[in-house]
Amino acid sequence: MSDIALNFTRNEYADRLAATRKAMADAEIELLIVTDPSNQAWLTGYDGWSFYTHQAVLVGPDGDPLWWGRGIDALGARRTVYMSHDHIIGYPDHYVQSDERHPMDQLSTVLAERGWDTLAIGVEMENYYFTAAAFAALQKGLPNARFRDATSLVNWRRAVKSDREIEYMRRAARIVEAMHQRILEVAEPGLRKNELVAEIYHTSIMGADGHWGDYPAIVPMAPSGMDATAPHLTWDDKPMKTGEGTFFEISGCHRRYHCPQSRTLFLGKPPQKYLDAEKAVLEGVEAGLEKAKPGNTCEDIAEAFFSTLRRFGFEKNNRTGYSIGLSYPPDWGERTMSLRAGDHTELKPNMCFHFMPALWLDDGGIEITEPLRITESGYECFCSTPRQLFVKE
Amino acid sequence: MSDIALNFTRNEYADRLAATRKAMADAEIELLIVTDPSNQAWLTGYDGWSFYTHQAVLVGPDGDPLWWGRGIDALGARRTVYMSHDHIIGYPDHYVQSDERHPMDQLSTVLAERGWDTLAIGVEMENYYFTAAAFAALQKGLPNARFRDATSLVNWRRAVKSDREIEYMRRAARIVEAMHQRILEVAEPGLRKNELVAEIYHTSIMGADGHWGDYPAIVPMAPSGMDATAPHLTWDDKPMKTGEGTFFEISGCHRRYHCPQSRTLFLGKPPQKYLDAEKAVLEGVEAGLEKAKPGNTCEDIAEAFFSTLRRFGFEKNNRTGYSIGLSYPPDWGERTMSLRAGDHTELKPNMCFHFMPALWLDDGGIEITEPLRITESGYECFCSTPRQLFVKE
Repeated sequence: MSDIALNFTRNEYADRLAATRKAMADAEIELLIVTDPSNQAWLTGYDGWSFYTHQAVLVGPDGDPLWWGRGIDALGARRTVYMSHDHIIGYPDHYVQSDERHPMDQLSTVLAERGWDTLAIGVEMENYYFTAAAFAALQKGLPNARFRDATSLVNWRRAVKSDREIEYMRRAARIVEAMHQRILEVAEPGLRKNELVAEIYHTSIMGADGHWGDYPAIVPMAPSGMDATAPHLTWDDKPMKTGEGTFFEISGCHRRYHCPQSRTLFLGKPPQKYLDAEKAVLEGVEAGLEKAKPGNTCEDIAEAFFSTLRRFGFEKNNRTGYSIGLSYPPDWGERTMSLRAGDHTELKPNMCFHFMPALWLDDGGIEITEPLRITESGYECFCSTPRQLFVKE
Repeated sequence: MSDIALNFTRNEYADRLAATRKAMADAEIELLIVTDPSNQAWLTGYDGWSFYTHQAVLVGPDGDPLWWGRGIDALGARRTVYMSHDHIIGYPDHYVQSDERHPMDQLSTVLAERGWDTLAIGVEMENYYFTAAAFAALQKGLPNARFRDATSLVNWRRAVKSDREIEYMRRAARIVEAMHQRILEVAEPGLRKNELVAEIYHTSIMGADGHWGDYPAIVPMAPSGMDATAPHLTWDDKPMKTGEGTFFEISGCHRRYHCPQSRTLFLGKPPQKYLDAEKAVLEGVEAGLEKAKPGNTCEDIAEAFFSTLRRFGFEKNNRTGYSIGLSYPPDWGERTMSLRAGDHTELKPNMCFHFMPALWLDDGGIEITEPLRITESGYECFCSTPRQLFVKE
């Protein structure tokens, strides 16, 4: 492993493992099967686009975690994880996308060989990549195990970031700033949307401030006009038009750490409704940010934002933000905290959020968002992108 | 829906629905819950990066399919599906990533309201996005339903492409050709890998031959040297070096249709081992292609390839290709046919494959692959990229 550069110190990986083991003990879990790629990377350093076949990190009763996955990807594990090679287990290729056998059959054997087949086993029931069939195969293969739902057990350990993680997110922040800058430089009536997206991609991967760009866990979303009434459309080759707004929901990414930020660009003179929406969103953001400090809750930020919005006559029926950090597709959120009513999570220093006060209106959308970090006394916005509706007349 | 441009005729969508209903009848399934985003798009036209929250297409006993998903994404469905708006159902946002309630609780109510809660219900047990928790919630919410495994039921209907689908794949082929061309133009010792990947992305989204580039379901994989001993590593900012090989596993994409193709570039004079591997792979490809015709099987292609490879003294322990077409992340394969021993699927005209004879060696990797279509009498390679190890001395 001498030529492998880990993204974090071995001490940091040890801290993460200890925190996970403590949470396992609290939940009476003896063996944790981690199928979330973000959790796998956080625990071991594993990095590769291999999560489309079944793989897992196993946190057993003691010792370093085990990486388990497709045989050809065990080679990638050797290139990326901190554990020694005897902690890497590959399964044969005939388990891949077969309708006769499931990789979890093989995992059951691996666990039985270690005497782990009668333990209390935590599985991430609600995770992309832990399919209904995977669980069925495990239940069949491990009839004496006691399964417990460990959804988000590791995700919650990731909520408060280390200084090194914050450093990577700051690098990603420089990248997303550069991406918005590039949009403002090149967007103009007649430019085809895919041509603009090509520029966004180029900037995001080139990186910024001397740091390279990794792939964000979501592709750029850049809908215009009526397409911007919906939040998650991607792009086509229609030319940009005067009189249309386009929002850009994009993220910088460095070593899998994300800093998402959205801005909206209007070509031509925006209608009054757009300017009203801008004013409502900006005041709502200010009101929300005032609540962003240790001791307050996620709900406090959301309530301050939503009540301001309502005062301006706008309604929004969806959450206004979520926790961010390390992520793999299909989502750059951490799936723990949400900025919405009912989320009473107490804010702590080095929690990081994408404060996402998007408004999708009848005939367009406006997104002016802020990625932020909770500090000892309040918050720090990761980005210096001007907080406004961009207009090119 | 007047301003919506569908990617296929309504007749083609009707044919797809009829083929799916026939397969449902054969499997004694009365209601199909389609959670695979590729299958959703194929059945309805739905397109959006929204699959990170639960959504489904419902094929009931009669009538058009229903689209069901997060409320804000119902707006995206209105912009993309062929069905009328009363076939689009959104669920409230407090079901999103909540640890108190699951979107499938809400779907159970939707089904009960239609009297579908006692039917034989097909679910895609082995699909990304159909989590163990989703199935558990459905089982709890629909105690009188009889669940059947419908994994790949729709995927198999997609195996033989329509002429319009082939046309989109040909456009994607022009794009991946342009991507490889761009790599050859700019790669040189000292170029940072992320700078090269930025160029690859830019070319892929700009498109080719007048057709725009969509995002491929997998990001570019471009490992060099020892990193190329593993198949699925992505990139960093290390400079390219003389004396190192790099393989590029990339795909063009147009309207979600893929044409993946890999090539390997060696900077400097390749060692004899590389040239031997090139020769083995190229002869193996020729041998495999000779078997690529209707009436033969997937296994026939694989056996011809592997036996040639063995004759040259190389071993490969994994499948050498898979079915391709419409796809969403995390995989551009269709998860039906594989080119490997034991796959006795009979080849038919307009089946499409990525013939993927990659070799990962002790100190590097070589990938020289061909996307192809089965014709009435043999095969057609989608791409004209020269079939060789690229060398820049």
